[in-house]
Amino acid sequence: MDTRRAESFSDGVFAVAITVLVFNLLSIGSGGKPLTYRLLLNESWPQYAAYAIGFLTIGIMWLNHHTMLAHVTRFDRVTLVLNIFLLMGVVAMPFPTALVADNLTSAGTGGRVAAVSYGVASILISLGFSAMWTYVSAHEDALTRLSARVSWQTRWRFSAGLVGYIIGTLVAAFVSAWAALVIYGLVAIYYLFEHLPAPDATASAAGDAPAPD
Amino acid sequence: MDTRRAESFSDGVFAVAITVLVFNLLSIGSGGKPLTYRLLLNESWPQYAAYAIGFLTIGIMWLNHHTMLAHVTRFDRVTLVLNIFLLMGVVAMPFPTALVADNLTSAGTGGRVAAVSYGVASILISLGFSAMWTYVSAHEDALTRLSARVSWQTRWRFSAGLVGYIIGTLVAAFVSAWAALVIYGLVAIYYLFEHLPAPDATASAAGDAPAPD
Amino acid sequence: MDTRRAESFSDGVFAVAITVLVFNLLSIGSGGKPLTYRLLLNESWPQYAAYAIGFLTIGIMWLNHHTMLAHVTRFDRVTLVLNIFLLMGVVAMPFPTALVADNLTSAGTGGRVAAVSYGVASILISLGFSAMWTYVSAHEDALTRLSARVSWQTRWRFSAGLVGYIIGTLVAAFVSAWAALVIYGLVAIYYLFEHLPAPDATASAAGDAPAPD
Amino acid sequence: MDTRRAESFSDGVFAVAITVLVFNLLSIGSGGKPLTYRLLLNESWPQYAAYAIGFLTIGIMWLNHHTMLAHVTRFDRVTLVLNIFLLMGVVAMPFPTALVADNLTSAGTGGRVAAVSYGVASILISLGFSAMWTYVSAHEDALTRLSARVSWQTRWRFSAGLVGYIIGTLVAAFVSAWAALVIYGLVAIYYLFEHLPAPDATASAAGDAPAPD
Repeated sequence: MDTRRAESFSDGVFAVAITVLVFNLLSIGSGGKPLTYRLLLNESWPQYAAYAIGFLTIGIMWLNHHTMLAHVTRFDRVTLVLNIFLLMGVVAMPFPTALVADNLTSAGTGGRVAAVSYGVASILISLGFSAMWTYVSAHEDALTRLSARVSWQTRWRFSAGLVGYIIGTLVAAFVSAWAALVIYGLVAIYYLFEHLPAPDATASAAGDAPAPD
Repeated sequence: MDTRRAESFSDGVFAVAITVLVFNLLSIGSGGKPLTYRLLLNESWPQYAAYAIGFLTIGIMWLNHHTMLAHVTRFDRVTLVLNIFLLMGVVAMPFPTALVADNLTSAGTGGRVAAVSYGVASILISLGFSAMWTYVSAHEDALTRLSARVSWQTRWRFSAGLVGYIIGTLVAAFVSAWAALVIYGLVAIYYLFEHLPAPDATASAAGDAPAPD
Repeated sequence: MDTRRAESFSDGVFAVAITVLVFNLLSIGSGGKPLTYRLLLNESWPQYAAYAIGFLTIGIMWLNHHTMLAHVTRFDRVTLVLNIFLLMGVVAMPFPTALVADNLTSAGTGGRVAAVSYGVASILISLGFSAMWTYVSAHEDALTRLSARVSWQTRWRFSAGLVGYIIGTLVAAFVSAWAALVIYGLVAIYYLFEHLPAPDATASAAGDAPAPD
Repeated sequence: MDTRRAESFSDGVFAVAITVLVFNLLSIGSGGKPLTYRLLLNESWPQYAAYAIGFLTIGIMWLNHHTMLAHVTRFDRVTLVLNIFLLMGVVAMPFPTALVADNLTSAGTGGRVAAVSYGVASILISLGFSAMWTYVSAHEDALTRLSARVSWQTRWRFSAGLVGYIIGTLVAAFVSAWAALVIYGLVAIYYLFEHLPAPDATASAAGDAPAPD
């Protein structure tokens, strides 16, 4: 029962955060120029791209959150508090996403500053995922079925993403916003394919036994 | 358990996306003219109509999503990723809906451009539904109870909607926004009555057996 | 399982609709006058009152929706479509609520027009509740445990609210916004105490038997 | 089943209320000054701090709500109505949070007025928690497993928070907004560590018995 409400709350937070992204699209509709012009790709493509990338990013975060919590059978207070900190980062994501969309094509340093803010937010969320996974996998009551090998694989996986975001942020700060966005995109694609082991893969009996919830 | 969280997240996303439509209504209240005038049907009817049609459209999408997922007993990674792409389209719907509401009665090409954007978004969502259903029904582990006949019926159904939206979009682009909206409305009414088979209709034992969730 | 997702979606819609009310509060914070003045009751009390009344109203609607659906063991297509129409009314409620808050103390007919819009929305939602309850209680598969006496009691109850809202709307249109608001408040208080029978009260075995969900 | 929908609705409300906080961040992005300047900590730190503190505050409220409801096996009408009043306070929290963020660094009394509004909202929510807990623990059907000792401990706990918020509000009104925020922060940290007893701690059999939901 405990995990159900924590999941339900987390799902709600993810769902609202991912839907906030549409407000950036809605802003395309208002403006002085004709609608045909405003909707065209060469005018508003950063808004469309930011919507698609932001949606995928938060969606993938939900996927990983989902897979991670599938291992946890009972939440204690620490897990719940770590979860709140993690969600704090997730909910903030529409902010740097909107910054990138609004400033990418602007002259000056706006695009790079926005890309840095996107990288910093991603780094904080990566750290949140790592902290939660480290706690959950160290806590014997919460995760007994996972072997040490799988645990190390997943820890490596979180580190890989973190390193990618740090490199991207440095590139954004000193080189180019565009190069940074390519790096962020590669990290997202990496996370789309590489993933935490599903509970089934590590404990085949989990699906057969009559689960209490 | 797996399907439960995917459904819970999807329900949350649908719920927020459908509620975003009220912001379009809220904008009626502000403006320089007297409230009596602004609320009147001959002034604000496109806002009311867009709210009702947009709500019905997203509501019907939820209905179909609900019926489709009722067949799926366990989500794999591909289904989850396809689901995220599908939700990306659903969440975007308030944007073309607002465009239609704001531009339908304007002079010039605004109404037709808005109707094209509505059609394009609907086509993308139709493709998302088709892709997800094709994957789900081809994946034997996920959907073993559905007969080939039912599967083809439902694939035809998705195609019918898709063709309707393509015709509507072409009409919007070259003929008239109003004619396009009539076509979109007919497709919505078609989807309201025609629907995916419920799990009960295809596997009568499903309701009797003690379901694991 | 069917009812679970319909409830989950409905709960999400109610939750977002009720939270949209806070945006009306947030608007108090912006403006040219000093913050002390703007927050004071004699300046912003309609906003506070509208938030409290709107929250209670949607909250009570959720309560009644919750009690009504507790009788339903399996949703068919018609119930789901009626539910979408009902939610369409619920989600719209923040709009007339904001209108009342913004126009109640204005000179002219603004307050009465806003009170009429509030009454019209309430009437439509009442009709939605009545339609759904009539269908659900007439549909033998969905509701077999409820006696005819209880069914008539609840139908009377919906009618009482409907009559109250119609009187309130007429009073708003021809007499006074304030008198209408008092009537709306009385209806809300009536609904807070009078309620649909809980499943336990009508079928004592329902709570004892091991429910499948 | 009853508690499930009340929890689902509450989780949704908490999830939306906590996500509304991001709109305050989004406002940082717009403005006449260069993006680099606007994002800097010495310009926008009150927005960042308000986001983090507001998120933690609502998150902790969710935690406590979660722990409180874990004791309740079946909701009656009074509990549901008390829950609505409690949620009314929770949903309002983004309003004083935004006021503090916007006015903390302003000259004049704006900061103190905002800090008072934050304290008043916190006091009302504390009273809501106390009322709900008092009712739930007094109602024998709802909570029979909790010993009198634990019940008193938790009642003391709510009172401690309430006293803290009252002191903070008085400090905000007559002394300094900053000192008040420190007090509010200490109360939040107190609630982060001190908490309601989990059902497991009070009734060891609860986790072992096959729960009906």
